[in-house]
Amino acid sequence: MDTPTSSAAIGPLVRVGTIRSTLRSLAEAPRQGDEGAPDAWLDIDPGVAPALEGLRVGDAIVLLTWLDRADRGVLATHPRNDPSLPLTGVFATRSPDRPNPLGLHRVTIREIDGPRLRIGPLEALDGTPVVDVKIGWGGA
Amino acid sequence: MDTPTSSAAIGPLVRVGTIRSTLRSLAEAPRQGDEGAPDAWLDIDPGVAPALEGLRVGDAIVLLTWLDRADRGVLATHPRNDPSLPLTGVFATRSPDRPNPLGLHRVTIREIDGPRLRIGPLEALDGTPVVDVKIGWGGA
Repeated sequence: MDTPTSSAAIGPLVRVGTIRSTLRSLAEAPRQGDEGAPDAWLDIDPGVAPALEGLRVGDAIVLLTWLDRADRGVLATHPRNDPSLPLTGVFATRSPDRPNPLGLHRVTIREIDGPRLRIGPLEALDGTPVVDVKIGWGGA
Repeated sequence: MDTPTSSAAIGPLVRVGTIRSTLRSLAEAPRQGDEGAPDAWLDIDPGVAPALEGLRVGDAIVLLTWLDRADRGVLATHPRNDPSLPLTGVFATRSPDRPNPLGLHRVTIREIDGPRLRIGPLEALDGTPVVDVKIGWGGA
């Protein structure tokens, strides 16, 4: 994935977990989780597993992912890849293509098995790195 | 800021803008934007300004920030720094202290002046790096 060079690097971001999903390509993934996405597993890295303490089955959480198949050089796009819609800055869209391809996903915890959470619905692809989990944000 | 070493680095994350606020220290910042936070300016870096095209005054957006004064080594905390509340994994809290200190902020655009947006309410401190702007997400 190309990295924009116009801005200063901050971070670094670290992987805290990984999505395990039946979705393996962009072609089969819905654009948003509420458009027919399946459940998936979130495997949390052993080193950060204590950060899960307090999460319960049924909780609505927000996952932040790093959409590692996105194009970081895109600044404007046609929303939903529809060429009839006007070219729009990516900050005014939900496109995964943007300088920092961070994904936000509102999901429900279906099952907890140690450091593995079954969650859904989730449109992220198999292997997508997870960088944060939040609760109690905006009704999620 | 210490960086966790237990997980693989991904990214890198780049700064796309910077918060300009009257809030200059954690002591004076409210814990959440809806708890009496002021308006602030978001200065977008010139190189990514085209990504703003399509945003309008009155739009509700989500800012993603990099909370550069957070402690990345914390995996469990007492919610809201209240020692009477049980020690809880950071993924079950909204604490800024977490492996990747990404902040989520729901704000309204008050004014647009070229690559500068006046937004609010916002609890982030002056100088905080902004890493993404999203629209149309979860009612925001």
